[in-house]
Amino acid sequence: MNNAYTRVDEGTLRDYTAAILRGVGLSAEGARIAAVILVTSDVRGIESHGVARLPQYVALIDAGVLDATAAPAIEREGATTALLDGHNGMGQIAGDVAMRLAIAKARDHDSGVVAVRNSNHFGIAGYYAMLALDHDLIGIALTNSSPLVAPTGGRRAMIGTNPIAVAVPTGDGRPFVLDMATSTVPVGRLEVYGRKGLPLQRGWAIDAAGDETLDATTGRAGALLPLGGTAETGGYKGYGLGMLVDLLTGVLAGGLYGPLISGLWDATAPSDLGHFFLALNPAAFGPLDRFHERARDLIRRLKAGERAPGVDEILVAGEKEQRAADDARGHGVRLYHSVARALDDLGHRFALGDLPTRAEGLSG
Amino acid sequence: MNNAYTRVDEGTLRDYTAAILRGVGLSAEGARIAAVILVTSDVRGIESHGVARLPQYVALIDAGVLDATAAPAIEREGATTALLDGHNGMGQIAGDVAMRLAIAKARDHDSGVVAVRNSNHFGIAGYYAMLALDHDLIGIALTNSSPLVAPTGGRRAMIGTNPIAVAVPTGDGRPFVLDMATSTVPVGRLEVYGRKGLPLQRGWAIDAAGDETLDATTGRAGALLPLGGTAETGGYKGYGLGMLVDLLTGVLAGGLYGPLISGLWDATAPSDLGHFFLALNPAAFGPLDRFHERARDLIRRLKAGERAPGVDEILVAGEKEQRAADDARGHGVRLYHSVARALDDLGHRFALGDLPTRAEGLSG
Repeated sequence: MNNAYTRVDEGTLRDYTAAILRGVGLSAEGARIAAVILVTSDVRGIESHGVARLPQYVALIDAGVLDATAAPAIEREGATTALLDGHNGMGQIAGDVAMRLAIAKARDHDSGVVAVRNSNHFGIAGYYAMLALDHDLIGIALTNSSPLVAPTGGRRAMIGTNPIAVAVPTGDGRPFVLDMATSTVPVGRLEVYGRKGLPLQRGWAIDAAGDETLDATTGRAGALLPLGGTAETGGYKGYGLGMLVDLLTGVLAGGLYGPLISGLWDATAPSDLGHFFLALNPAAFGPLDRFHERARDLIRRLKAGERAPGVDEILVAGEKEQRAADDARGHGVRLYHSVARALDDLGHRFALGDLPTRAEGLSG
Repeated sequence: MNNAYTRVDEGTLRDYTAAILRGVGLSAEGARIAAVILVTSDVRGIESHGVARLPQYVALIDAGVLDATAAPAIEREGATTALLDGHNGMGQIAGDVAMRLAIAKARDHDSGVVAVRNSNHFGIAGYYAMLALDHDLIGIALTNSSPLVAPTGGRRAMIGTNPIAVAVPTGDGRPFVLDMATSTVPVGRLEVYGRKGLPLQRGWAIDAAGDETLDATTGRAGALLPLGGTAETGGYKGYGLGMLVDLLTGVLAGGLYGPLISGLWDATAPSDLGHFFLALNPAAFGPLDRFHERARDLIRRLKAGERAPGVDEILVAGEKEQRAADDARGHGVRLYHSVARALDDLGHRFALGDLPTRAEGLSG
């Protein structure tokens, strides 16, 4: 076992996380949903959006800026669309309810679109898009987020890393799952590089004066660049995609957007984030099995392509995360020791014992 | 007037283009639609997808691989979805019919999705997305295209520059219009840089061995890189977006996809391209005027942001093209002399006189 990591059974981690969330006031069902989504992030190897964030969610609830007891409510509804008010509750609960509603609409009418306002950080966007896969639907999930990215030509962080997630079923349990921030890198990458003293890559960040920087600390004081980097390398496209996400989330749903959103994990004001969920039935366009076959054929052909020097394998979106999930389900979810200890601290507050790790022979 | 350019009235250019398309066999209505779309591209300053391509469309028709007389037909239809067979006709005609059908469905049911197979190059994707604006709908248009882009880790061009276009109404005639290839740059950029003897930027292209190259000729012999460039600068995201477009177009509609698509302007085999059109009614989620206000407010705030050194203005998607259109409508559409002469040559074939340019005092 890697020294920096411990391993925890998925079920154990989920139950422990849910118990903490129950402790801070979530309903049993709400706690279960939020715990599933947080742990799924760790299972898929996306530690930045997993249980490592639990202390920050708890801090927002403790500060009274996120309502642990809130349940989302439908504010407007048509046959293929709905608007939900998240009532300033956990983004995971609003997201789960909203995506399931989009899926129900797509099952009835072939397409469903649900927007959410007055919500909070919802974790990994890919989770919601992937809910569509169980119904052989295509799923899309978008959310806006705290300003971290400079528009092309600007020097201040004015839009979030606003992710785009799309899941496409393939009929063989190996779906296409794109889950990408519209910045070149997440802000956490700068923090990691800063700690390690490594220079950044070009196209990642600018300093406070608006000039590109390879220094992590200077970059953190400046802003992230949108996908594509500077204008010369197509950064205006990433900026356009990030702005599009704001238009389809906060602007469409009637929440906050762009620079109006408060800072990341700011515990002084409600987030009022917006989300967007779409489900689409591929069987409306032709036989489902033929669709699956073509999707698998495209994946197969790309993977069989000639590789660049030093490359072992051409991957398609979602493959890396699926392998992380296979590993986590076989050997336990990998958690930094520091993350496990932070969970212990939260657990003790609610009279829970330490998080049982797999090394200790406990299993969920 | 710039020596390299002449100016032509929009109406004159449209009528001349339509007359040529009539000459090669399109119906009057089909020729009008295709001419409007080609000329709109030039009007918006996107010369690469405008009338400069007319000789290539004509060559495909002459070669018998594109059917000038084909009309698209609905193959499957539900309340919110439809599949069209383009019958190997002009992509512009199939695209126009399909997007208008998506719009009609969104007007009735708040969302409409139409996929097209068996189609050809359809010009600028933004045109179709923008059709939604007249109905205060959000419009999305996607198309796959000939392989020009290498998947991350690959060294062969296996997917197209597969554009994503999204138009969002703002109520003031200045919509958000994102129309972007999912490669860092279009292939035409390499040609232009090659002619001028300029080095490429990083993140644009790889050579045939799969290594990044700054040489235009070597890059043309290799492949374009997806938006984001190499893996270190997020290229797998652009690759994911390009593959997503293939999944929602050729794979969803039942046409070709990825490396199965023939080469650009290849006159030996039908293209069988796929398109995807979506229209969504923002008024289903709340009052339209409030949506417009929020969209304008986001645009205003971004444009008012502090600028990076040497930057005069922060632009939002579609602004540059709208200014080109204002200029073209005031002073005539700018055409390279070489493009105007190529149109003359086509026109002579159908007993048309030379294309009347504005410098000669003729107006359409």
